[in-house]
Amino acid sequence: MKLNDLQTPWTLARRAQKMNPSVLREILKVAERPGIVSFAGGLPSPATFPVAEFADACARVLRDDGRAALQYAASEGYEPLREAVAALLPWNVEPGQVLITTGSQQGLDLVAKVLIDAGSRVLVETPTYLGALQAFAPMEPAVEGVASDAEGVDVEAFSARADAARFLYVLPNFQNPTGRTMSEARRAALVERAAALGVPLVEDNPYGDLWFEAPPPLPLTARNPQGCIYLGSFSKVLAPGLRLGYLVAPPAVAPKLLQAKQAADLHAPSFNQRVVAEVMKDGFLQRHVPTIRALYRAQRDAMLAALSREMAGLDVTWNVPDGGMFLWARLPRGMDARSLLPEAVERGVAFVPGAPFFAGETDPRALRLSFVTATAEQIDRGIALLAATIREHRGR
Amino acid sequence: MKLNDLQTPWTLARRAQKMNPSVLREILKVAERPGIVSFAGGLPSPATFPVAEFADACARVLRDDGRAALQYAASEGYEPLREAVAALLPWNVEPGQVLITTGSQQGLDLVAKVLIDAGSRVLVETPTYLGALQAFAPMEPAVEGVASDAEGVDVEAFSARADAARFLYVLPNFQNPTGRTMSEARRAALVERAAALGVPLVEDNPYGDLWFEAPPPLPLTARNPQGCIYLGSFSKVLAPGLRLGYLVAPPAVAPKLLQAKQAADLHAPSFNQRVVAEVMKDGFLQRHVPTIRALYRAQRDAMLAALSREMAGLDVTWNVPDGGMFLWARLPRGMDARSLLPEAVERGVAFVPGAPFFAGETDPRALRLSFVTATAEQIDRGIALLAATIREHRGR
Repeated sequence: MKLNDLQTPWTLARRAQKMNPSVLREILKVAERPGIVSFAGGLPSPATFPVAEFADACARVLRDDGRAALQYAASEGYEPLREAVAALLPWNVEPGQVLITTGSQQGLDLVAKVLIDAGSRVLVETPTYLGALQAFAPMEPAVEGVASDAEGVDVEAFSARADAARFLYVLPNFQNPTGRTMSEARRAALVERAAALGVPLVEDNPYGDLWFEAPPPLPLTARNPQGCIYLGSFSKVLAPGLRLGYLVAPPAVAPKLLQAKQAADLHAPSFNQRVVAEVMKDGFLQRHVPTIRALYRAQRDAMLAALSREMAGLDVTWNVPDGGMFLWARLPRGMDARSLLPEAVERGVAFVPGAPFFAGETDPRALRLSFVTATAEQIDRGIALLAATIREHRGR
Repeated sequence: MKLNDLQTPWTLARRAQKMNPSVLREILKVAERPGIVSFAGGLPSPATFPVAEFADACARVLRDDGRAALQYAASEGYEPLREAVAALLPWNVEPGQVLITTGSQQGLDLVAKVLIDAGSRVLVETPTYLGALQAFAPMEPAVEGVASDAEGVDVEAFSARADAARFLYVLPNFQNPTGRTMSEARRAALVERAAALGVPLVEDNPYGDLWFEAPPPLPLTARNPQGCIYLGSFSKVLAPGLRLGYLVAPPAVAPKLLQAKQAADLHAPSFNQRVVAEVMKDGFLQRHVPTIRALYRAQRDAMLAALSREMAGLDVTWNVPDGGMFLWARLPRGMDARSLLPEAVERGVAFVPGAPFFAGETDPRALRLSFVTATAEQIDRGIALLAATIREHRGR
């Protein structure tokens, strides 16, 4: 008998049996086809990547400290980078509280490992970041969406679901997928209520620096650091291809997150950490981020103008995000974004249907449009194609 | 009432309650103290890092393809790097079967997520790689050590424990911690038995290229690819600070591992993947790896010579590894490596006690000595200090 005749009966973990081909991944694949105007991906504009600064920083790091930069390193992260992160944050954070992660997506994975048992109740906004749902899923939580409006999570709806919830996950600034920002009043009320109810908050802030007219209100974590975990990222202000993010957690959970981090991948790439610390020296972000804001604001305006022009009379609605990368739109009554997508792709434009972003009941009419990856010219063309798709779909 | 007066009652997941400060981490901290000769860490010799080649590759990647290198990328990995990995492996592997991971430690995390339910039986060698135990732990397996000798896992002992085991984890080449290599006969017997019993094998091979006299026998996976997951790493042949590894898995599990990878950190750093693919062009590894082998062989020989000289008459035994980074020693009868360690550190030499590497019953006399991080001169001094520590300890 040959070995090849024996079929090894792989037994998958229960969580793996539930894993399905990722909607996000399939979307990104569609968006990569040449000739398609894609509003689908959450990709920062590559025009904003400081390529020359990275080249200089790589050369300096390898010249001055190459062997240390290529060696194994501490799981907590590179000390000067932790110091730089602590200095960036708008509340009193010690460098020792900062854990450098392999992108802020890993922060979500670590939070899930440390806080979620199978069946644990986890609360999220309605809708919420799809990648967070995917990061939490392997720990098999019972995820519940909390009713939310244009100002963010409804505090009374949160209270009604708070019992035994392990945490509430919130993305208060220029949310993915809706682009909405939690108001000052809502933040104050939510933090106070969460503290009173004893429910931890997990605050995800990848887009907070990308404001257009004025900075968003103070983070939730700044208002009650002992009751919150804060996740940040370098992906939107420098570049996502380095996979660097960070988290700040109170002493009640920080040591466990560090241990989970070490078990997950030992440490974030030490070379990348040194390169980013080198790029950030001398206040580079303070000069660089305003250029990203200006570009993204212009592209948001181009998309708003194109929507006003092309969607006239189509019963399509959309919001006006104050920053970030995404705009949230709703199709005419009775239309489903998921069934519209293949027709749109056929015409040459892609978007993300809103449905996968909902933990519970979905809004089939919702869709997410990124205004940062496509150029202004592509935005004009793509929105016109989308309007034509809607018009034809309605006529069927 | 102030927010700060309210203590948020964080409820940890069951797995997190079991997480303890990592033995490995504490060891690495000790080893970092200046003036200490450390045989403790698993750090490759920084003298082997091709710093100039990395500097050239970073410059070329950022010049020729900077924006793509800094953008988000596919979770599977960078295609030319997957092709390079497939071409390196000594059996027929398609690039599409290769998943690039954030270090091979992440490969262990993904395997755990996809194959382990709480209480699942997982088999490991006796002793086994500590980092694997740490990576599996969050999924709460029941880990059992399989009796092993100088040739590797005892096949009969494996058979006796095979019932309902999710997999057997093995590190056949120059094992961490023992330095031992699984013999050809043992490999053939193990793979055949595992296939007959229907137990998958997870084969970890970070050190296989670091052979001293002759290459090790063919990997287990090459003998039955449908029944094995193979984990590899660039940490020991290029540099660990880039955090790049890879895995090859059969179709029964590969799509689930990919989905777990995406949820964990979206993708391994795209910049690093391109830099490593660039460095590997034109057969660089074929020129570079022999220099690592020569260095490590010389350092192993220095350690063997120092042990013969310094441990004479001390009832200390050790093995002679045919490659890799580690040597496994045993202290005199009645001595415990854990209680010796603080005394050794006091004298200026560090090692890793063997106990944490055992899933079940431990060998308190065992200790792991790395011969690659310290220089030959430091090895001489360190082994003399270790012998003096043992002599004094015995005299108490």
